[in-house]
Amino acid sequence: MARWQPGTRERLQVAALELFTTRGFEQTTATEIAAAAGVTERTFFRHFADKREVLFDGQDLLVEAFLAGVEKAPADAPPLELVTAALAGTAGFFTAERRPWSRTRQAVIDRNPGLQEREQLKMAVLTQTLGEALRAKGLADPVATLAAHSAVAVFSTAFGIWLREDRGIDEIQAELLRTMSTLF
Amino acid sequence: MARWQPGTRERLQVAALELFTTRGFEQTTATEIAAAAGVTERTFFRHFADKREVLFDGQDLLVEAFLAGVEKAPADAPPLELVTAALAGTAGFFTAERRPWSRTRQAVIDRNPGLQEREQLKMAVLTQTLGEALRAKGLADPVATLAAHSAVAVFSTAFGIWLREDRGIDEIQAELLRTMSTLF
Repeated sequence: MARWQPGTRERLQVAALELFTTRGFEQTTATEIAAAAGVTERTFFRHFADKREVLFDGQDLLVEAFLAGVEKAPADAPPLELVTAALAGTAGFFTAERRPWSRTRQAVIDRNPGLQEREQLKMAVLTQTLGEALRAKGLADPVATLAAHSAVAVFSTAFGIWLREDRGIDEIQAELLRTMSTLF
Repeated sequence: MARWQPGTRERLQVAALELFTTRGFEQTTATEIAAAAGVTERTFFRHFADKREVLFDGQDLLVEAFLAGVEKAPADAPPLELVTAALAGTAGFFTAERRPWSRTRQAVIDRNPGLQEREQLKMAVLTQTLGEALRAKGLADPVATLAAHSAVAVFSTAFGIWLREDRGIDEIQAELLRTMSTLF
């Protein structure tokens, strides 16, 4: 897929992850990332607001994947079908080809409390945005809010398993949805 | 003035909330809070690390309330009973007497993105700590992780309703747990 070919943006991401891994996130500067990717600092900042955003570049796409899933569901879909539809959007995102990158990225995040906070805030934003989409789709509160929380809980738990096990995220999420139904 | 005068901490909290509300969080300094409470700046910093922590003072107590609930549950309790037990701990915390303070505090937080982030991180820490407590109580993963997420989803949704409606948080949480069971 073209997204993993060495375009400038992708070269910057690969260079950044390599430096974050070998040298540490704090010890790496945007200037060094630009140099390692063979571009100017100015070019770096045309692509990313700061070095942290190199790691969180996919956030908007992830949110959009969830929303696209909800959008595609029928207007009168029950809550669980909407949750399932939202989660289905992630399968095209977390492919087997992406796993090595995601694993290395996670190892960088696990070593840095500030990045862990950023990741947690990302989940909070996703929950809020998904809740709004579910309300727009006709779910009333508190069902919409609880459904959004449940979807993100399933996704984030599934993501952790997906990083460790060589299985598709759609299969893991389907399993976790069944686990949720045994819980309640 | 006595160093550990009873009520100092509470006076600082009341003074801080009043200043945050009338003047704005950003525009208020720790020195001004101390002066309004009739104590020295030094005394302020014996009680709170910074002005933000005046608003998040209850975090440890809230986490402890959740953990105490889990602790009290029988060793072989099923997941939903553990979730219910964890949530039961919050009833002694969010009393009707506390509601005016909580409402004013929430209004301050709603006007400040940085404080909203702090609140979301608080929920993330609560989820993680509760997950560990549930694992210690014998739940295996992914059940423990999903149960922790579900409990915090129910709590945070219930908290929003509790702020608006004059009902007990235990009643609201029981309702939301039933809603969760209709979702899955």
